[in-house]
Formats: sequence, structure tokens, C-alpha cells
Amino acid sequence: MEAVRLHAYGEPPRVDEVAEPEITGSNDVIVRVGGAGLCRTDLHVRDGWFADLGSVGLPLTLGHETAGWVHAVGSAVEHVNVGDTVICHPNISCGTCPACWAGQEMRCAWGLSFPGVTRDGGFAELVKTSARAVLPLDPRVEPAEVAALADGGLSAYHAVRKQLPTLEPGSRVVVIGAGGLGHIGIQCLVALTSAEIIAVDRNPEALKLAEQCGANHGVEADGRQVDRVRELIGGRGAEAVLDFVGEDDTVQAALAMLAPGGRYDVVGYGGTLTIPTVQLVLGEVQVAGSLVGTLDDLAALVRLATAGQVTVRTALYPLDAANDAIADLEQGRVRGRAILTPPEA
Amino acid sequence: MEAVRLHAYGEPPRVDEVAEPEITGSNDVIVRVGGAGLCRTDLHVRDGWFADLGSVGLPLTLGHETAGWVHAVGSAVEHVNVGDTVICHPNISCGTCPACWAGQEMRCAWGLSFPGVTRDGGFAELVKTSARAVLPLDPRVEPAEVAALADGGLSAYHAVRKQLPTLEPGSRVVVIGAGGLGHIGIQCLVALTSAEIIAVDRNPEALKLAEQCGANHGVEADGRQVDRVRELIGGRGAEAVLDFVGEDDTVQAALAMLAPGGRYDVVGYGGTLTIPTVQLVLGEVQVAGSLVGTLDDLAALVRLATAGQVTVRTALYPLDAANDAIADLEQGRVRGRAILTPPEA
Amino acid sequence: MEAVRLHAYGEPPRVDEVAEPEITGSNDVIVRVGGAGLCRTDLHVRDGWFADLGSVGLPLTLGHETAGWVHAVGSAVEHVNVGDTVICHPNISCGTCPACWAGQEMRCAWGLSFPGVTRDGGFAELVKTSARAVLPLDPRVEPAEVAALADGGLSAYHAVRKQLPTLEPGSRVVVIGAGGLGHIGIQCLVALTSAEIIAVDRNPEALKLAEQCGANHGVEADGRQVDRVRELIGGRGAEAVLDFVGEDDTVQAALAMLAPGGRYDVVGYGGTLTIPTVQLVLGEVQVAGSLVGTLDDLAALVRLATAGQVTVRTALYPLDAANDAIADLEQGRVRGRAILTPPEA
Amino acid sequence: MEAVRLHAYGEPPRVDEVAEPEITGSNDVIVRVGGAGLCRTDLHVRDGWFADLGSVGLPLTLGHETAGWVHAVGSAVEHVNVGDTVICHPNISCGTCPACWAGQEMRCAWGLSFPGVTRDGGFAELVKTSARAVLPLDPRVEPAEVAALADGGLSAYHAVRKQLPTLEPGSRVVVIGAGGLGHIGIQCLVALTSAEIIAVDRNPEALKLAEQCGANHGVEADGRQVDRVRELIGGRGAEAVLDFVGEDDTVQAALAMLAPGGRYDVVGYGGTLTIPTVQLVLGEVQVAGSLVGTLDDLAALVRLATAGQVTVRTALYPLDAANDAIADLEQGRVRGRAILTPPEA
Repeated sequence: MEAVRLHAYGEPPRVDEVAEPEITGSNDVIVRVGGAGLCRTDLHVRDGWFADLGSVGLPLTLGHETAGWVHAVGSAVEHVNVGDTVICHPNISCGTCPACWAGQEMRCAWGLSFPGVTRDGGFAELVKTSARAVLPLDPRVEPAEVAALADGGLSAYHAVRKQLPTLEPGSRVVVIGAGGLGHIGIQCLVALTSAEIIAVDRNPEALKLAEQCGANHGVEADGRQVDRVRELIGGRGAEAVLDFVGEDDTVQAALAMLAPGGRYDVVGYGGTLTIPTVQLVLGEVQVAGSLVGTLDDLAALVRLATAGQVTVRTALYPLDAANDAIADLEQGRVRGRAILTPPEA
Repeated sequence: MEAVRLHAYGEPPRVDEVAEPEITGSNDVIVRVGGAGLCRTDLHVRDGWFADLGSVGLPLTLGHETAGWVHAVGSAVEHVNVGDTVICHPNISCGTCPACWAGQEMRCAWGLSFPGVTRDGGFAELVKTSARAVLPLDPRVEPAEVAALADGGLSAYHAVRKQLPTLEPGSRVVVIGAGGLGHIGIQCLVALTSAEIIAVDRNPEALKLAEQCGANHGVEADGRQVDRVRELIGGRGAEAVLDFVGEDDTVQAALAMLAPGGRYDVVGYGGTLTIPTVQLVLGEVQVAGSLVGTLDDLAALVRLATAGQVTVRTALYPLDAANDAIADLEQGRVRGRAILTPPEA
Repeated sequence: MEAVRLHAYGEPPRVDEVAEPEITGSNDVIVRVGGAGLCRTDLHVRDGWFADLGSVGLPLTLGHETAGWVHAVGSAVEHVNVGDTVICHPNISCGTCPACWAGQEMRCAWGLSFPGVTRDGGFAELVKTSARAVLPLDPRVEPAEVAALADGGLSAYHAVRKQLPTLEPGSRVVVIGAGGLGHIGIQCLVALTSAEIIAVDRNPEALKLAEQCGANHGVEADGRQVDRVRELIGGRGAEAVLDFVGEDDTVQAALAMLAPGGRYDVVGYGGTLTIPTVQLVLGEVQVAGSLVGTLDDLAALVRLATAGQVTVRTALYPLDAANDAIADLEQGRVRGRAILTPPEA
Repeated sequence: MEAVRLHAYGEPPRVDEVAEPEITGSNDVIVRVGGAGLCRTDLHVRDGWFADLGSVGLPLTLGHETAGWVHAVGSAVEHVNVGDTVICHPNISCGTCPACWAGQEMRCAWGLSFPGVTRDGGFAELVKTSARAVLPLDPRVEPAEVAALADGGLSAYHAVRKQLPTLEPGSRVVVIGAGGLGHIGIQCLVALTSAEIIAVDRNPEALKLAEQCGANHGVEADGRQVDRVRELIGGRGAEAVLDFVGEDDTVQAALAMLAPGGRYDVVGYGGTLTIPTVQLVLGEVQVAGSLVGTLDDLAALVRLATAGQVTVRTALYPLDAANDAIADLEQGRVRGRAILTPPEA
């Protein structure tokens, strides 16, 4: 089958012909890929950020955001059958350790792996995962249209969910970055809160998408965004900032927009946060990293999508055009989420 | 092997010689029983309350509160090995449905079963359960000493956990019933809150145990308990009541002891709750049922026990004296929890 | 000035000419009434339900849901000036007791009073209240259009706020009673949650209003409403029920519609709730009374209204037509909320 | 009367003879000081950190942590009488703005002031405050023994309260700084959680106090404290860190001790926090400033003290020895809290 594989860190992946995966464990599930989203994390994987997490070494099939149809199942799998439409949680967890029992699957202690990062992923015709990471979907759903929920959407939802107690009537939330994650995050905020939403992005097209998704305001990140946001919302600043970029300049802008008592959730990463403790204490602000999401988050997000409250804006690319999609993502030319689709998917 | 089996609803179970269970599924785990707790729910099972839940029919091996050592595992089981000391969660859940993903295993939608209720349970030398319901323990732990945590302790902990937001400094909590569940509930309250604890029980010996467990006061349920409790705590009543009995008279007493804004959690069952809505609204009180506990609750409770913050008071009986234990439970002669131990356990 | 006063329990109030209230305490505020809502609680006051709470005795000026303009202030009042547009919280609290410090003003221990219930209220040209119960509004707001937020809206919002943790994506909430409180409650649910909303009412006109307010479905309370609701939402029932009626038949219907793990919040009152503890425990359901709302709830609700997310449907009556309004309320002829407006307001 | 007053930033305060304060507003309360705690914030005030907050200018009577007896009250004060034993919340808030209504008095929008910082404080025989900041105590309480609860204890309790949802059974919390705040924070943790407590301090005497207060371990901050703590608790690190120092080295140590998913609350201030967003995100950690505490926090803490669950270790100094107390604090010679007591208090 066709697969997009990384052969050397820092170099573009290649489209290879590889053997199909096979069922070897009784809880295995092999999914025929309908669509697999391209994410900034794929660039970090390519660049070797997670090289020390991996155990399979290179070459590695990329892709950690996948939906499709069940192709084969192990003997103990009961909740899905061959042919079922499914979406895959991006991490495989053991289900028996205390972290899994507590719904903290990202901190699974006894059996964590990540297709597309530590084992072969979804930029292929077939991907192997585990029963516990597979959620059945309504058969009418088109996998390529929802694949982006599996990681980008999930990360956005997880961060929004943490902000809910802060976002009371009259609160203002600034969303930094209106791309693959941001445009879903905005829809989650609209669905789940009454907050006034201010989107900030460098790209005017992204701001248009943000407003279509329900943002009340769009502010161009032209260097004066802190002042513009403060003018818009007046007073003490925003009760919450949700940062899907996490670079040095967005971090400083985020802290400068925050009201006393506010919370700042960081989903994107790359920069460094620096804040004097006197500012942290006197402002009584809160800063939190947000890492992907739980199994329960994915189920909830899929329910939002099924009810029509969240829709993914996608840009489809054939699987063998993976490097075009990567170039478009790096150049800021993708609106919403780039999705790779295998032949005949 | 020896097993205590129910042959007809309403009649005492019998000690039978039966075939040993065998591994048939890859996620199966067979546990050699070290101790299995006897619970009021076993009496309800005997009396046929759950007859319509069962699928195996009679005879049924009783026992839903078990700890022991791993005897055999299916091919997909990785987190425990033969010989490991373990405690079993009382319900087997699928791990893949939305309820399981949300940590609401008691409402598992796709694969719920209960050893001792809907399939053969732990009043036997061996019991078969599933990987996901098995928690490894420190090898130095004696199973018979902790078996009661598996259901009675779990139910107590689950209810206490729900009360935590209510139990602020200066709060008073009334615990009705200081038996198998109550004496563990009191220890959980001591460990997790600063609340003043008032135990209420008909039996003076149970009140002594309550005070040894950390209750600040013991009040005999002699018909005047509402007045006595109100005298003790003064003012508006108790911020919380935790009812491990749930019969008509305890329900009425509980409501009469409750302060405005208070919460009443019901764990035991048997009676009927009746309250005018005007009393519910003007008092702004809250009434909630509490059903066993989650996998996460069990792991947390075991950590409390490991740290020495919760200890079970047990009364040991040989497995073939099951009917003696039942008689003692029905006559109110058991202090703490009755535990059946198989020969050579 | 003109005031609608109760002279005898069980009899209609009369429109009297009475002396204007005067500032006597330094924290007093006298409000010129712009609109005062009529509520089912006024009927209960008339019928003597709260006779033993009162200290002023009869005659009593009714009205506990008021907005208007500041007419006079005591020497210590700093946050409002004569002429400011304001809305009044329905209860006067001391601000210094532990309950007030905890934001539980309805349980104020040292200085609770209720205009319209225990002292003269807002069915008059002027009403005297206290600084702490007065919230300034945008001067462009028309008091008669928002007065209903002061008690009916507040009670609805308070109950909805308690339900928020239960109302996750995909949840269903049944709202019983789509009148003065219900039509605001539905708007709060739309603004604050992604839940699917099913309104239940005897009156087809009320159901139309419910759907205009954002309910997804309207179900006539014709005796078959439990079956109809269960058909609509399928499966296990509703995760939450919000009952603005609280009579015997709505209570039984509510419990019958509830899913395992669900919560039932009761705002209206009149009937009696009866439930076997085994149903409470095995269903692990939760039942809670909800009493008016906090100062913080009122401020939050006003922010929702200011942002256009909540609008009150009003039926205006001149103050001296109070008994017509009462008759219309008792006969089910009011859509939304009846508001009394003094001459020249 | 005698008062300890700051005449120039950066210079030691002087003991002056000044006029007694007088009742000028109807909500004023004048308290005869029984004891006033000395806090590191007093050093920051002396050094001019808050010069731009002040409106009274210098000279300024220091002292923001006070307990005593009511000396005089304004005409609207009802909840305390002359002679009552009281403790003062450190900030005066309006009680009518949305922040006050929400129980966020530290962010009071319309009337915030701080005795000892922006107006004359408690290092004097008498101090003037406002009704809303005065909590009556049991008359048997000795004010000098509880004064430290008013700010230091309050700040510790407020931060502990925020950590409660994180501190489940089996959690470990590191407390950095076992001085005036820390030794109370440790007692709050013991009373309210089951967590294992590791105290870290430079001073072996402070560690002894920490262990007397209930810390499970004491670790000297000798440069190797991160390794020592990680050895003690093993595995992934501490679920929570509570930092009462907040200097550069404690911040870096705190972050290095934190487990994935952990939270770090900063109460002391002085240094700068620096963390790459990738560490924040992949560790999914949370960092929050904690600022004094609410009125409700103070009431709760006083209830803990009344129940004997929190006791302050005090070092008493006569009011006119204020500069000795300051020198002892700066040299690390105070165990627990230094309290100034006026003559005849």
C-alpha cells in the first residue's frame, strides 16, 4: 500500500510502497484511512523534536489524525465490525493503569504509543491502532470531513473545556491563531459559552474564517494587536486567552491582554513564557499548557459535530501530494485543515 | 473447587463443589480468592431483587467484593502476571463506550456485567473477571484485609467524594449507619475533609467503632436521634448527611437533620423518600443516590489504604461458613465487614 | 403614592394611596419603580404561605421583582446616584455574615428581608431597599423590559447555572413550564450550553414561545408527555430536567424522563416528590431545589440581557390593573411575564 | 496614640505619637489592636513597591494583618458592638460591585483600599476599617494569637483551597518556605487533604516547625533540593507545588519538581518565571498566582482555627520594638509569625 514516510529527520517525507499492517494482537484494529489531517506537529516530528520518544526508528509513516472505516479487527474487539465508519483517538493507551482509570489517557503509565509519532501512522491506506482508541461514527459521516477532529479539533476542545468555569456571561476570550485548531476552537466556544470572542491572526483570510465560525471580532496580528484588543474590550482585559500558536510574540501578547484573575491556555508551542512572579501574584493570573485531549473529549466533540455545532473547514490533498500540503501549511496558505486522502478513499 | 451458590431466590445459598473457571477470552483474568466480603446487597441478590438483570440464571455463585492473587490470564493481558496480588472492581465494563470513556463505568453501555450478580462471583476459590477490572496491589498486602474496599469501601468513598465540595471548614456531616460501609466512610471523611463527623447507629458497639474510626460524636438511633443531633450541632442543621441505610426511618431523619443548602447522599436502599417540593425549594436542599464507584475511585481508595489512612475492620469466616456470616449480618452481629476466606487462602 | 396592598390573606390586594417611603438608614436606597413583575409567588404571598416570615404584618405592598430609577439614597451609598437606572435583587442581605461572604445571600444569617414578602415591595410608585441589593444598569435600558430578570429570570438562571456541569455536548434537558421563568431559562440554556432542549407545557401558545426562545422541541403536557419525550430523545432519558412548575404531576413526569446519572432541579413548588431509595441509588440520580439566586447570578444575567442573549417577553399592565394581571396569570393567559407599570413610569 | 509610621521609602519606620482615628462614615469600624502581624509585604511597602497604589502619601502607618476589639462603630454598623473581639480582612471592599458580588473582593472595582498599604494600618493602638472587613470572633480568643490569620494565614489558605481538586488520595505536595505563611499552609493541607506533604526551606529550624505542623518530610534547600525531593517521592514528581517564596531559585526548583499534569501555585513574589511553551504543553502543567484571599476564605480559616485544626506559631514584640521585629524577619530569625502588640493590648 501507499504510505508517506519519514526517512531522515529534517528532510521531506517520501511516498513509499509498503506492506499492509496485520492483526497481531487480539485488541488490534486496522482502519482503512478515509482522511488524515496534516498538523504542525507533523512538522515537529519531521524535524526530530520527538526523536527520543520513538522506539520504531525511521522510516516512520506520519499522520496522527485519522478517520476511516474498519478493515480488520482482533479476536477480542467487540464494539466495532469490519466496515464501520470510525475516528481514531491519536494516542493508544492501556486502559488499566491509574491514569487511564482517571481519564488522563495522555499520561497513560503502562502502554502509551502514538501512531504517526512513535509507530506507523495514518498517512497511508491502512493504519493499525487499538480497540480502545477507536470511536464508531454514524455511517453517513464522510471520514475526510471529520478526520481533523481527531487531533486538531480534540486539542481545541480540550482547551476550551478547561476554560469553561472562567467563561461566565460577559466574559471575553481572545483566540490567537484561527487556523486548523483555532477555527474549531471558536465553534466550540460559540456552542458551549456565552463569551464574546476576539480572534487574532496574522492572516486576513483566517480572520474571515474566524468570523464565519462565530468570532465576534477579528484583529490582525500586525504588531499593534494588544492595543487593538484592549480598545475593543475596554477595561481590564480579557478573562481568557486561548493560544493556538505559542510562539514568543503570541505569549507576550497574550499576557498583556489578560485581565486580573484571568487564565491563559497554551496549546501551540515553540516560544518561551517569561513573567515576573509579582505580575503573576498581583494579577492572580493562571497559565496552563493543554495537551491533546481525553477519550471523553473526543466523544463529546464528535457529538457536537454530529449535531452540526462544529464543522471542519478542510482542504483536500491526495495522499501522494503530501509534500504540497506540507508546503502550503508552512507558507500559511491553508485555510482550516489540510487533509490527505488515499486513492479510492 | 468450592463455591457458595444460590439455587433458589429467597433460600440460603449452598456450598457446592464446582468446576474451575477457564480462560476463554484474551482479556480474561482468573483470580485465586484471598477474601470476599459479604454485603447487604448479597441478601438482596438472594432475595431476587436483581433477578431480571441476570443472564446466567441459577445456580449463581455469590460474591462481588473480592481480592486475591492472579491465577491465570488471557493472551492480551499485560498489566498483571500470575501470582500478583490484586483487588477486583465489582463491575466488568467494556472500556470503549462513551460512558466508560467518561469514567462512568457503572453506566457502561456495551458490556456491563457483575460477578456475583449477573455471573459467577467471588464466594469461591477462583473467580473469573476481566483485565480492566483488576488493580494490582503491593505484594505485601493481605487480600482478606482489603477485600472490603472492593465494593463496600468503594461505595463509601464514591459518596464521600461527591460531598467534598460541600464539606468546607466548619461543616458538619452526619453518617447514618456505622457498619461495613459506614466505618470506612468515616475514615474517608477524616482523611479528606475537616468536617465534624456525627455517627448515628442503632448499635452502641457500632458507635464505638465509629469513634475509633474518627467520628467526633456517636448518637444512638433510639427514635430521638434527630433532636440529639440538632442539639449537638446547634443552629441550622448539618451541611451533609451520608446515609448507608436508606430505609424509611433513616430517610425521614436525614431530611430532618439537614441545614438549608445542604446535601443528602443515599447509598443504602430499601425505603421511600417523600418531600414536599416547597421544602426542597425553600431549603434549597439536594438529594442524590450514590451507586458503587468508578475505577478511579477504587484506585484512589487503595492509595488511602496503602498510606494507612483507611483500615478495614474485618470478621473472618471460612468460605463454607457463609451461612453463619449471613446470619450474623442479618442479626446485626458483625462489626465492620464479614469476609469469607477460601481454604488455604 | 399609589400601591397595591394586601389587607387580608386569601383576598385580592387593593390599590391604595399611601405615604411615600423615606430614607432612614445610611445604606437605604429608594427606587422609583419603572416596572414590577407579577409572579406565582405573589399568589402564594396573597394566600398566606409566608405569613409566619413577615414582621410588618398587613397591609403589605406586594411586588418582589423590580427595576426603575434611583429616587433617593442614604448618606453611605456611593455606587448609585439619583436618576440612575437600576434593577433590584429580590432580597436584602447584610453583607457581613458568613453566608453573605460565601455568596449565599439567600441564607443571610443576620439581616435578611424581602420587599413584597416581609416588607413593602415594588407594586407601588416607590420602593425602599438597600444599597447592597441595587445593581446599576445601562441608562438606555427600559426598566419595565428587564424587571422580570430580578426574580423570575434570576431563579431560572440560578437553576441553569447549577446544571452546567451536567449539560455536556450531546446532553438533553427537559424544561417543564414555558412561562415567565421557563422562557428565560430556555434562553439561558441556549446561551450557556450545547444541550438539546425539550420544552413541555400544557399550553400550545407557551410552546410556541419556547421555540421562539430556542427550544429544539415542544411537547404538550397532555398526559402522554413522558412517552412523547422518551420517543423524541430515545435511549435512556434526559440528562437533566428543569421544573418550573413543581406540582405532583410534573414531579412524577420529571423523574420518569430522567436518564441514569441525571439531575432534576426543581424551581416551582406545590407538589410532593416521592421516590423509592432503590430508584435513587440504582439510577444514581440527583434531585435539587433551587431558590431564587445570588447577587452574582443577577449581575451575570443582566450581562446576558445586555448582550442581547436573553430577552423578556412581557405583558404590561397599569399598576391599578394589578387584579386583572393576577386573574390572567391564574387563568394561564399570560405569555412570558406580566409587568405592572406605575403611572408616568 | 502610638503608631509605627513610614516617613520615607527605603528607610525604617518610626514610632510616632499620632491622633486617634475617628468615625466619619456610617459603615466605619475602629478596632483597638490586640496584635498585628509583620509580613514580608511590609518590607515591600517600606521599599516603595506599592508607592503608586497609595493615595494618602507618607507618613503611613504600616500593618495589614490585625485582630483586636471593637472600639467604635458608625451608625449603620449592626453586626458588631463595642468590645467585641474581631479579626480584620486585609482589604476594604465596596460590597456592591460585580467583583464583590462574585466573591472576588481583591478585584473590587469601586472602592478598594488596604490599611497599612494605601491608608493607615494596624501597627498602632487603633486602626480604622469598614464593617464589611470585620469578622466577629469568639470572645475567648486572644487577638495576638490569631492576627496572623488575617493576611499570612489567609494567603496560605486561599492557595491551598485552589489546590484541593488536584490533591487526591496519593498526591504529593511540595511546600516551599515554612515560615509565617508556610507553617499555616501545611496545617491547612493536613486538615483538608490526604496528600503527602514535603516541606522545603533553607532553615533547619523552619523544617522542624514544618514537621510539627504535620509535614511528612522536611528537605533542606541546600541547592540539591530538587534531587532530594524527586528521590523521596519517586516517579514523575509532585502533583502540586505551593511556593511561599517566589524567588528565581524557588521558581526553577518548583518547575523541576512538578509531575506531568501538576499545578504550581505561587504566593511569594520577587523572581521571574521562565518556561518554554513546549514544556508547559507536553507536561500539561499549570502555573497560577495566588493573591491574599476572599472574605469567605477568612471565615473558613477562622473556623479551622476555632476547631483547633490550625494554630499560629507567634513571636511577640512590643509595638515600639517594630524595628527589632523587622530585623529578625530580614535575618531569618523568626519562627512562625512576628506579631506586634500595642501597650496594654
